[in-house]
Amino acid sequence: MTAEQELQACDFSHLFSDETRRRKSSPIKTTMAYFQDPNIVFLGAGMPPSELFPLESISIEMPKPPFASAPGKRGDTLNGTIMKEQEDLVFENDVPLARALQYGNSRGQKELLSFLKQHVSLFHHIPFKDWDIITTTGSTQGWDASLRIFCNKGDTVLLEEYTYSSSVEAADAQGLNCIPMPLDGEGIIPSKLEEMLANWPSLYGNIPMPKLLYTIPTGQNPTGCTLSDSRKPYIYRLAQQYDMIIIEDDPYYFLQMDPYVPENARSGAAEASPMSQKAFMSSLNRSFLELDTDGRVVRLESVSKTFAPGCRMGWLVGSKHLLDNYWNLHEVSIQSTCGFAQTILSGILNRWGQEGYIDWLMRIRRQYTGKRNTCMDNCYKYLPAEVVSVPPVTAGMFFMVFIDAEKHPEYHSTFKGNALLLEQHIYQKCLSAGVLITCSSWFRVNAPKPSCGKSADNTLAFRGTFASVEPDSMAKGLQILGKTLKQEFKLV
Amino acid sequence: MTAEQELQACDFSHLFSDETRRRKSSPIKTTMAYFQDPNIVFLGAGMPPSELFPLESISIEMPKPPFASAPGKRGDTLNGTIMKEQEDLVFENDVPLARALQYGNSRGQKELLSFLKQHVSLFHHIPFKDWDIITTTGSTQGWDASLRIFCNKGDTVLLEEYTYSSSVEAADAQGLNCIPMPLDGEGIIPSKLEEMLANWPSLYGNIPMPKLLYTIPTGQNPTGCTLSDSRKPYIYRLAQQYDMIIIEDDPYYFLQMDPYVPENARSGAAEASPMSQKAFMSSLNRSFLELDTDGRVVRLESVSKTFAPGCRMGWLVGSKHLLDNYWNLHEVSIQSTCGFAQTILSGILNRWGQEGYIDWLMRIRRQYTGKRNTCMDNCYKYLPAEVVSVPPVTAGMFFMVFIDAEKHPEYHSTFKGNALLLEQHIYQKCLSAGVLITCSSWFRVNAPKPSCGKSADNTLAFRGTFASVEPDSMAKGLQILGKTLKQEFKLV
Repeated sequence: MTAEQELQACDFSHLFSDETRRRKSSPIKTTMAYFQDPNIVFLGAGMPPSELFPLESISIEMPKPPFASAPGKRGDTLNGTIMKEQEDLVFENDVPLARALQYGNSRGQKELLSFLKQHVSLFHHIPFKDWDIITTTGSTQGWDASLRIFCNKGDTVLLEEYTYSSSVEAADAQGLNCIPMPLDGEGIIPSKLEEMLANWPSLYGNIPMPKLLYTIPTGQNPTGCTLSDSRKPYIYRLAQQYDMIIIEDDPYYFLQMDPYVPENARSGAAEASPMSQKAFMSSLNRSFLELDTDGRVVRLESVSKTFAPGCRMGWLVGSKHLLDNYWNLHEVSIQSTCGFAQTILSGILNRWGQEGYIDWLMRIRRQYTGKRNTCMDNCYKYLPAEVVSVPPVTAGMFFMVFIDAEKHPEYHSTFKGNALLLEQHIYQKCLSAGVLITCSSWFRVNAPKPSCGKSADNTLAFRGTFASVEPDSMAKGLQILGKTLKQEFKLV
Repeated sequence: MTAEQELQACDFSHLFSDETRRRKSSPIKTTMAYFQDPNIVFLGAGMPPSELFPLESISIEMPKPPFASAPGKRGDTLNGTIMKEQEDLVFENDVPLARALQYGNSRGQKELLSFLKQHVSLFHHIPFKDWDIITTTGSTQGWDASLRIFCNKGDTVLLEEYTYSSSVEAADAQGLNCIPMPLDGEGIIPSKLEEMLANWPSLYGNIPMPKLLYTIPTGQNPTGCTLSDSRKPYIYRLAQQYDMIIIEDDPYYFLQMDPYVPENARSGAAEASPMSQKAFMSSLNRSFLELDTDGRVVRLESVSKTFAPGCRMGWLVGSKHLLDNYWNLHEVSIQSTCGFAQTILSGILNRWGQEGYIDWLMRIRRQYTGKRNTCMDNCYKYLPAEVVSVPPVTAGMFFMVFIDAEKHPEYHSTFKGNALLLEQHIYQKCLSAGVLITCSSWFRVNAPKPSCGKSADNTLAFRGTFASVEPDSMAKGLQILGKTLKQEFKLV
């Protein structure tokens, strides 16, 4: 065992919210130690008898690894049957329905947790020893819980200046100050962040210093940009210096793609000689967890993009000390992740094994690489380069179309130099022409006042997605967008 | 249509929390109107393609109605297969996996909601027209959400003086004042409640008047008592007079039983001539919803006791106006109930039909009636009637063992007349002897100060459960309890 592995996470209870501090453990929980004690007749907990659960078994038909190399090709399937009782299990690592569907295990079922913990270990080398995981009902819930664990009304959180709108809405509603961090094509700009933090009182007056730094590091929503690994140590040091918790919301981690190569320079080589698992694993960006010598990072993971959003299942990775507080909150809110989701996902994952799951993740990478290629190819083919720029996307589901508002002939006349008005106008024009692409302003975190170091934003941009769009539709949609922009900017 | 059905729910937005008031709708949600518009190329929402959901089908093996009359007898089963794509569905009312596992539908899948809404209509005649339902991840989450919808820190909620400890913990942690309502064997005592409310300032000083009245009306946890229908109009009028929302948490509604008949007076008649569905339905208690001319009741329903707790699925019934606010909260927290739970429960319920589900609920009633009988029989057989009373239970999972502390030979000496100390002592004695039964004090809502009209409580009581206890264990457990109490009270 190396010295590094002996590191223990620090105590961050000074950052907890009043709600977290007020939360007491219930004496009734102490009884569960006797639940399966053969010497005790347990009249303690109101658990319905599993013979009244109206399910004898669940059979699932899943794709079978190794997964077809050609994107979209439906390969062989594998059937698995999950039985109700432990003694009837066909596959010994299954979570039997009688347990999956009973109360208890609000951290998660052991067969699932153990798979996920090993999976996390394969991808991230966490420097401290006492890290753990706990299931969530998805990262949206994980973020809502994080706000409740750490923040009181009036507290401050930092978010990327464009970010997932639900994350801002959740924090706004809880009465928190949402302060935007400047971004560029490589994500958060550390020097600008440092400047903000160093000059906080003069920029933000009596708004408290931030407790949380929230980032979507990979394939960011909505910008599509990825925070470069080289910037992370700088940001982590700022989190240390200003005593912040980093909430790393990373649902698109496994939607990292091969680099974009323009259509005419692409050969079939990549498909002919597929990547090895080792090459795949080392190609991926590093998590803040790997820098986390203090235990101040909470990573939100989700199967919404690797399995399906309706699973409503994710997990948190962080120090046991922090996660215990999420656990206490979960016990009086969501209680636990759905038992169906846990037993079915555990059933699939444990049948596939770690290698099979990595193979599945590589399949997703290929699929998204293909989708991204189609999208970029069509952007560069149809959008007028005179006024538009589209940074090539390397991860996630989204691309941003940046438009030079100054080049719009009526920008300063009809639209009075207001990018928001022009954005709304173009959005409507596109919609009438038959393509819906979302306004970047909908994702903007607004600084509390113009004196906060940001001038009125002149960015004109739209977010598109290629995740669920068929190639023909993508071509058609971008063709319409290109035509609309050319008309608007009088390029035809 | 009768005049009654034309009633509209009142607007209760004056009771909303600051969090609810701050919640704004996101412009991005407006785009969903175009999601399946054939004239629009939709580049709006980041939805993963369903061809990458790693499940082709789910097959479930469920009990087949009509259900065996004999409790516990495993009858025939029925198999159902839920397909991924709508066009492949074997059973047309299924929720296809491609939809169940996708984003969206945070109120619930239409096939499930429509079944549940009809089910609610069959059991409750709601006087106003604009009621609706919305799925939850169980009633614990429904209660946590209710607190957030209505309460700010410092607000007040009324709870039964003994209640589900998690409900108190959730409210406590949110910084709310939890005020106990006096109970007797028929539930909340309306005259005492009225007295409390009428004399609020002198009893509770500057604690605000309550916003919420929280009740577990049927087979209450932990007391096992059921609020009598005759008291409900009085309580509802008080809620109107003092402008409170009633949160009716009713997970044990379908665990109402046949009346208890002592063992020696019981014949096999009940089993020989089973109840009709009509008789079953009219035997059940009435919900506060039936009195709700204002739309001030939110009913929390759950499948935890009728299906299985691990489903983590329930639903709220209330005015559309109130439920829209839960919906907005859900969208930035849980997002939606798990898609597996929705498609599987919908699959079972729609295959059974309303009649089949009622038949299932009657099966549960028979099963719990049998369990309750075994429990009561053994209580009356083994517990010393000189010091113990056990009110016969008519609903739920719990029974209370009330003990006359005054009859304990050392109550005023060793235990200094402190029922809590004696309770703890007896709890430990029982545990050492081999039976675990929970202390009633763990479920007590403590009044904020003794001046609040309640003297120090001398109740000595324990909560037991018969839900998951086999008949032999029940007999053994109560035998040990009886013996321990006899020793303690020097009755041997």
